[in-house]
Parts: sequence; structure tokens; C-alpha cells
Amino acid sequence: YGKNTIKFLRLHKEGKKDFVKEVEVCTHLRLTSAQEYLDGNNSLVIPTDTIKNIVLVLAKKNGIPTIEQFAIDICKHFMTTFCQVVYVKTYVQEVPWQRLQENGVPHIHSFICAPEGIRFCEAEQCRNGPLVISAGIKDLKLMKTTMSGFEGFYKNEHTTLPERHDRILCGELFCKWSYGEHKDFDFDCIWYMNKIRECILEAFAGPPDCGEYSPSYQKTVNSIQMHVLSKVSQVQIIETMLNNTFYNVVDMKNLGLTNEKEVLVPVETPYGSCACTLARKKFLEA
Amino acid sequence: YGKNTIKFLRLHKEGKKDFVKEVEVCTHLRLTSAQEYLDGNNSLVIPTDTIKNIVLVLAKKNGIPTIEQFAIDICKHFMTTFCQVVYVKTYVQEVPWQRLQENGVPHIHSFICAPEGIRFCEAEQCRNGPLVISAGIKDLKLMKTTMSGFEGFYKNEHTTLPERHDRILCGELFCKWSYGEHKDFDFDCIWYMNKIRECILEAFAGPPDCGEYSPSYQKTVNSIQMHVLSKVSQVQIIETMLNNTFYNVVDMKNLGLTNEKEVLVPVETPYGSCACTLARKKFLEA
Amino acid sequence: YGKNTIKFLRLHKEGKKDFVKEVEVCTHLRLTSAQEYLDGNNSLVIPTDTIKNIVLVLAKKNGIPTIEQFAIDICKHFMTTFCQVVYVKTYVQEVPWQRLQENGVPHIHSFICAPEGIRFCEAEQCRNGPLVISAGIKDLKLMKTTMSGFEGFYKNEHTTLPERHDRILCGELFCKWSYGEHKDFDFDCIWYMNKIRECILEAFAGPPDCGEYSPSYQKTVNSIQMHVLSKVSQVQIIETMLNNTFYNVVDMKNLGLTNEKEVLVPVETPYGSCACTLARKKFLEA
Amino acid sequence: YGKNTIKFLRLHKEGKKDFVKEVEVCTHLRLTSAQEYLDGNNSLVIPTDTIKNIVLVLAKKNGIPTIEQFAIDICKHFMTTFCQVVYVKTYVQEVPWQRLQENGVPHIHSFICAPEGIRFCEAEQCRNGPLVISAGIKDLKLMKTTMSGFEGFYKNEHTTLPERHDRILCGELFCKWSYGEHKDFDFDCIWYMNKIRECILEAFAGPPDCGEYSPSYQKTVNSIQMHVLSKVSQVQIIETMLNNTFYNVVDMKNLGLTNEKEVLVPVETPYGSCACTLARKKFLEA
Repeated sequence: YGKNTIKFLRLHKEGKKDFVKEVEVCTHLRLTSAQEYLDGNNSLVIPTDTIKNIVLVLAKKNGIPTIEQFAIDICKHFMTTFCQVVYVKTYVQEVPWQRLQENGVPHIHSFICAPEGIRFCEAEQCRNGPLVISAGIKDLKLMKTTMSGFEGFYKNEHTTLPERHDRILCGELFCKWSYGEHKDFDFDCIWYMNKIRECILEAFAGPPDCGEYSPSYQKTVNSIQMHVLSKVSQVQIIETMLNNTFYNVVDMKNLGLTNEKEVLVPVETPYGSCACTLARKKFLEA
Repeated sequence: YGKNTIKFLRLHKEGKKDFVKEVEVCTHLRLTSAQEYLDGNNSLVIPTDTIKNIVLVLAKKNGIPTIEQFAIDICKHFMTTFCQVVYVKTYVQEVPWQRLQENGVPHIHSFICAPEGIRFCEAEQCRNGPLVISAGIKDLKLMKTTMSGFEGFYKNEHTTLPERHDRILCGELFCKWSYGEHKDFDFDCIWYMNKIRECILEAFAGPPDCGEYSPSYQKTVNSIQMHVLSKVSQVQIIETMLNNTFYNVVDMKNLGLTNEKEVLVPVETPYGSCACTLARKKFLEA
Repeated sequence: YGKNTIKFLRLHKEGKKDFVKEVEVCTHLRLTSAQEYLDGNNSLVIPTDTIKNIVLVLAKKNGIPTIEQFAIDICKHFMTTFCQVVYVKTYVQEVPWQRLQENGVPHIHSFICAPEGIRFCEAEQCRNGPLVISAGIKDLKLMKTTMSGFEGFYKNEHTTLPERHDRILCGELFCKWSYGEHKDFDFDCIWYMNKIRECILEAFAGPPDCGEYSPSYQKTVNSIQMHVLSKVSQVQIIETMLNNTFYNVVDMKNLGLTNEKEVLVPVETPYGSCACTLARKKFLEA
Repeated sequence: YGKNTIKFLRLHKEGKKDFVKEVEVCTHLRLTSAQEYLDGNNSLVIPTDTIKNIVLVLAKKNGIPTIEQFAIDICKHFMTTFCQVVYVKTYVQEVPWQRLQENGVPHIHSFICAPEGIRFCEAEQCRNGPLVISAGIKDLKLMKTTMSGFEGFYKNEHTTLPERHDRILCGELFCKWSYGEHKDFDFDCIWYMNKIRECILEAFAGPPDCGEYSPSYQKTVNSIQMHVLSKVSQVQIIETMLNNTFYNVVDMKNLGLTNEKEVLVPVETPYGSCACTLARKKFLEA
């Protein structure tokens, strides 16, 4: 198969106001043929350059109402236009441009890049199969300074880690959920109204006045998934990965000081991650 | 000379609320001696490990009220403690942890990393010289989708660039300003009350309802500097660099379409940057 | 499941000579249990810290004769020691330290990092399943300045790419091959004697005096795979990916010059890649 | 001032053989004028696009015999052509493409990227000043597994580092030397015949059969500089920086094992670097 990545900006005006979407689009194609590999016969090969042109033409003609809709448009175009394509997957990721504000007034044409989590989506289709839509958020760096521990784990002669009931929980979160087969969803509504991002943050942090104790990275991952599934009915299955950053309390005894979780250093290696996928029962039964 | 970098977290509690500062501290030292280079005599060398310990001990004892104050503490410690040190510079940069909010309520112990510009500072001192303080912001990615052009530039036989009166202005901004010799400033007050960051954004963007035309990257750099100097009296000199990202309007004639600044691609190379330093007159005369 | 990465150095002496292996080891584990996710019950969880200790202890006790053998040792250890582990995969990647030479004489303890392709391997096992070994090379950047073209491809109204019979072929190669179920192979012998790396380079480049025409990236990928399968009998299946870097001949007409493939600029976007997996027939039938 | 970076490939043929140079060129210009900053008057500004064209045209017309000669050509062109330029600096860095060999036979058109140190140079000129040429090597990663220690350093209450007489010395080396004012040097001859790179490696490693003890990073830096100055008469001044990577011997007592510098882990932070500049006496007197 072949893969192709293109990055571009789509601008449009409504009245005096500019709207901007900068996206990175990666298109995977699998063809019926093997002759380009075996014989060097290129007659069915769609050049990278053509794929790029198609993506740009679709952006020009349809705009990018949501990144999900744009991914769907691209998938459909390849399936409909090229009978040699047996599989297409389109990944779209958005550069987090945010409108500038001056004393609360939104600026008509100035933006700042605010990367607190990158929104992305994927549309995927096999010939004769359904069009399946996923969406997600990545590069979301979060920290809890307390209300996290790790106790009661498996121990043997190689265990040196002490039990801790008050450590720092810090990591980079990746979440990807599937909406299942494509229906006429309003993707921005799901994103902004159902507040998936807020759901994730809430489940991570717990109530603002007291938080919620996390007994492990694993449990926190599960809490996030359960919370999203309970709040957003369109989500069928959710995959979550948490890349952990560990912090060690610096031992200052040699320096004549006690240090009770005041000065900590991040540990670069070993680093770990835990990942889990959770689906609705009826989705699995289907 | 020698340089040493350490990254760590400083936590403290006020009531039920946690406060967190994660910083990267880089300390440069120059010694009176050359014997460690010439003869391998290490008797005046301060090991990296000791520098690290000192930085951590100061963080533990004094906390990090502002990154500027912390840089000053470190500088003073090295100058006072080690007579073999002839020059010290301390650079401190802050990881942009921001307190999470749920429906407007700030969370007592959960944070998100929000990298819309990184705050940093520098304290610098030669033996028998004044302690000089600078501060700055970097990695601030900004874009104006209109009200920017580039015309009337120098032309000769190697010129192929057309004049443009409506292009995209996009870049990554670096600003560093000096407060001159150390006085008892309230650095957080200058940062938050005088709103240096807001000053920069205002000068870049212009009024929210109409913006301000930029005839070049150079002029925009100058506007930012003039605005900061006029609004923040403590700033003596300001250095500004703008790393430009160019966007080309895609030519779609071959594809049978017109494209009037709707679909654009970023140009990776050549890329350029312009930099300028602007000082108050009385500062230069002094 | 959980993943854990650790980087370390293993030194040993033979006579006066030092031998060094610096490796990055990533261990994936999947457990029988789900209770750590659902209930926060950690009693079967193997902490990252313990995994790190095990990897270091095995390196200390057994050394790293080959990275493949080391990956096998780690896999076996986890399967044998922890009955809650249902799946383990160990990835090992080697930092390319090469012994320094002075006028042809190898140095007994000095090394240079020479990253012309990174050697890696993977050992993988499900409980009650076979131990499967793969190896590979990545980050191998190669270029052919001629004897490469791309013609006769599929064309429609979105095609703007001209046919080219003399372009530059440049890319970053990733190859991973499987030895199938673990047998007592001498992995270094296969690597150094069967010269897999040389095989790949030969197939990419063709005969040194004339080269071999490549009609597409796809065909070059296939040639590499066919060549490795024909020369190295232990390889059962081979996966190859080529990340293409395109070079455009600069149009200098506006500057009054002709440029016949003398000055070219790399094109950052769109970039593409093609990937293919090829297996022996009898391997697929098995 | 303004800065501009462009990356491109220059190919040429001699008989059947292809020669390739891929370079990254960064040009800094300072102009007489300030009006582009103050008034937005661009009449003296040389656009990035024009700078790019000039660099490409010079590469096309003159080729790149050595990167130093190419940097000189660019500097001279800007000084001669544009009277508004008061200062120009050109930095050229070479992508380390190396001709492939099959059984010792060099390939006529296939290359591999072999990044064991990146060669670069700089040409610099102020109006009415001399043209000054520097050259250097960077990203050279070296390691000595023994014959290195650090003892007798300054100690006080913040010292926790033990003295070590057998540690690992590992780092990334940056060296930049000046040839002084431009004369008609054969730069490739200096590079290949005087073997500057070999000089550096020799001084770092010592004799191949026994090495040479290094009492500190500082002393090693100095040895490299002394060796280059003694062997290469054209070098007037040399600047060397060593970014240290520290390795800690893993404490395995808790795991019931002794570990005598067999298993070590790299320490990410704190990391340090030491830098020094050394010049010939007569150069300083001049």
C-alpha cells in the first residue's frame, strides 16, 4: 500500500471575519494490483502528486466544515473514482489555531497556536464495506500533584519500588473513539456540545474541590473511558493510552534537609505507558 | 566555561490548594582558573553534580516565587560562595502548567500543559559588575490571515517574487527584554499587571475589529517593540525575532479552478527570520 | 496492556579490549487480569520498576551476545516467571557504536557513533504459542542520482505530474524480516556472514558500474525483498517500507538559465511512502 | 538583520560517475538602513526569495567545489552586488552522503547517508573588513569506556559526587576553527590530507593499544585543541565544546548482585557541557 501526507491551510470569510483551518491529511491507499511491485507496470498507480491535487481540490470545493466531514469526502472520492482502490483510510489532524481575543473581544483575523491537545479523526473504508468514522485527541499533557498512589502490586525478588499513596500522576494522553458506521452526525456538535474533551479532563481530575483518588494509571484510563461512554452516546468504542512521566522526590538527606514531596525530578527512563480499549456491549455483540 | 542543565518540579501547598512550578534551569559558570584545561588540575572545578544540588537546595529552601527571583538567588549564591567564579549566568524557563477549571471553578490539584508561549528569564553577573535581569517569551506562534503585504522591495535580475498586498503573516515569535540592573521589581506584577504578553499580541494583531496593516515582518517586529517600551516602563531594551512561515496560494489553473487565497500550502524552505533590538535612548546614553 | 522502555549500556572486557553494547529495550506485557483497570486492584500488576530491574539483571547475568538472544532471554523470563502474563513482546534496538581505528589499528576502548542504519529485533510470544523472532534495520537513508523514473501511471483530470525517466530516487528504508519460530540460529552470523545489509544495498543500487533502472519506488521495494529472500534462507517473510524524499529540478528559466538536473530542491510535502510484505510460499501454506 | 535558510542538492557528472553535494545554506544579512523597521519602507530590503535565487544560481554556475569556496562565493556576491549590505555571514553545512561500495568497488551513482560528524563552514565579512573563513565539525558522538576519571575537584557542603578514577567518558563534540583572513587555501586538501577529523579522534582516544588517561572533560577538550593546532598550521584559533553524557553504574545491591561497571544507565539530567577557545599567540597579538 501507499501513504501520502500533505499539510495546508483552508481560509474562508464570513462577513468581515476570517475562518482558518490548517490541517495535515494522510491518505492510505491499497490497490487491487500487485503488478507495480512485481513487474514495474505503473498503469494502475495513482501518483502521490494526484492524491495531493485531489485533497486540495476537495478542500477548495467543499471547504472543511469539520475535519470528520472532510475525511469522509476524501474517502468517498477515492472509492467512487478509482475502481482499482480496495481500501482507503484518511487521517486528518488539525493545527490548533485559536482566535485571539483583546479584552474579551474576538479578533477578526488574528490567531494564536494553542496546542492543549490536538484534535484528529479517521475515516476508513474497504470496498463493499461500511464507512467507519473515528475521532480523537492526542498530545494532552496532564498532571495531578496529589490524590494518586500505587500500592498492593505484585512483588518478587526483583521488586525494589516502594508502595506510595501520595505520588504525582503525570502523563500524555491519547484517546481515540469510534462512532461506528457513518451516520449523519453533527461532529462539531458532539465535540463542542457533548464536551468530550471536558469529559476526559473531568474524569482525569475528579471534582475541583477535592479530586478523586487514583490507585493506578490503569484505573485512571478506565475512569476516562467509562465517563466518555456514559456521557456521549454516539461513541461505540474508546481506546486510551497514557504515557506516564514519573517524578522522583529528591533525597536530600546527604544535604542535611528533609524533602516531603516539595522538590521532584522527572525520570526520563524507564518510562512506561498503559493502554486499554473499551467498547459498549451491544457494539461487540453486533 | 561550563554549562549545566537541570529540570525539576517545585510543589507547595497553600491551604488545600497545590501550587506547581516545573522549571528548566541552565547555569553557566566561568572560572578564574585555566589549570583544569591545561594541567588537568581539578581543584577549583565545581562539579555538575554540585551545581545541581545547589539549584535543588535553593528551590527547596526559598521556593520559586517568580522565575526571575529564583534566577537572582542562584546567581547571588554562586558569586558569594565561590571566589573562583568570575561570571555566572542563570537561565530559567517554565513549563506552562495551567490550573484546570471545571465550569469556571479552578481545580485544587490538577493541571494541563498549555504551551502558548514559554516564559523565561536570565540573571547575569560578572564579578564586581552589576546583576542584570532579562525576561522573555518564546515559542509564541501567531498568524494574521490578512492585512499583511510586502511591496516596494529592492529588485534586480535575481528577483522573482511578485509584490503582494494581501498575504498571510505567520511566524514564531521570540522576545527578550532587559530590566537593566537588578532593582526590587515585582516581576509577576510586571508580567501579569502590565500585561507584556497582551502588549505583544495587541501590537501583532492590531484592533480586534479591523487589525492594522503590516507592510513587512520587519515593521511588525518594530511595532511590537515600540508598544512594549511605551507600555512597560521597566523595560530598558527589547530584542525581538520573528521566524517566518511563508504560505503559497496553490495555483489551480491546471486543475480548472480559481483559488483566491482560499487554499494555501506552507513553504518549508527557504524560511527566513528577522531580528531587531531596540533600546531606550537614556539607556544607551547611560 | 503496558509498555516500558529502558536504555542502558552493557560493557565487558576480553583481555585488554572493551566491548560495548548500548541498547534500548521496550517490553510490552498483556496480563490475564482486568481488575487493575476495573477495580484498581493492583495485585497482579508488575510495576515498570520491576520490569526495568529484570532487564538490567538479565543483561548483567547473561550479557548481550546478540540483541536477538537478549530479546529471547527477556521473553522467556517473563513467560516462565509470571503466570499472569498472557503475551510478551520485547523490542531491542542497538545504538550504532563502532570501534575507532587509527591507521587501520582498532582502538581497545574508544568508539564512535555511526548511524548508517539502526539494527533492531523483536521476540514475541503468546502463552502456549511459539516464540517468534524478527529482526530488521531502520533509518537507512539511500539515494540514487539517476537510473530511476516513473512513467505510465494512471491519469485523470487531477493528474498534473509529468512522466519522468530520469529522476532522483531517495528515501529512508525500513526492513523487518521474520525468522519464524525460534530455532538455534546464530543471529550475528546471519547478520554479518549472509550480509543482509549488503543484500539490501545491492538490490537498491544495482551493479556498481552501471546500476539498475528503477521504474518506481514499488519495484525497488520488491527487488530488495526478492534479493533478501533468495540470499538468506532463514528469512521467512520480509516487510519493507520506503519513505520517499522527492527532489524537484529548480526551474531557472525566469533567471535566464537552463538547469538539467543539476540543482534540485527537496520537497517536504507531499511526502509519500510505499510498503509491502513478501513471504515464502511454504511459509504461507504452513 | 535577516536570516534565510535553503536546502538543496547539486549534482554533476564526470564521465559516467555522478558527484553529489546536498547542502543547507544559511545567509545572514545586515543592511545600512533602518527604514524598513521604522517606516515600513522596503526599498532596500532584499527578499528571502531573491537570496534563495542567488544561492541557487551560484550553485548552478560555479558548482560547489568545496563548501568553503561556495560560502566565499556567496559572501563576495552579496558584498559586491548590494551596496546596502554592511555585513554578510554565510553558513554552509553538508549532508554526509557517502558513495556506496560493493566489495570495495565504488558505485557510480548510489549513495548512503553516513552521519558520523557533520562538516560545516562559515564565511563572514563586514564592509571594508577582511573575509574570514571558519570550518568545523559537529554532531560527532564519541565514547571512551575506560581511561577517564574525575578527582580532586572543589568540595563543600553541597558536594555529593564521589571521586572516580574509572568512569565512562561520552559526549557529542562540536569543533570550529578559523583559518583567519581568506587566503587561497585548498580546503579539501586541509580537510582530507591534514586529516583534521583524524586529529580530533586521535586526541580524544589516545594510542589504539593503550589510550590516554583523561582527568576531566576539560582536559580532553584542551588536548583536542592542542593536537589540531600542532598538526594543522592553517588553523589560527579553535573553539571546542563537549556536551557530556553521564553514565551511572547501576546499584544492584538490593537485587543481590555486584556490578562493577558492567551495566550502566545514561543520566538525562543534569547534563553539562564544557567549552573552550584556544588561539595561537601570534594570532592574538596580530
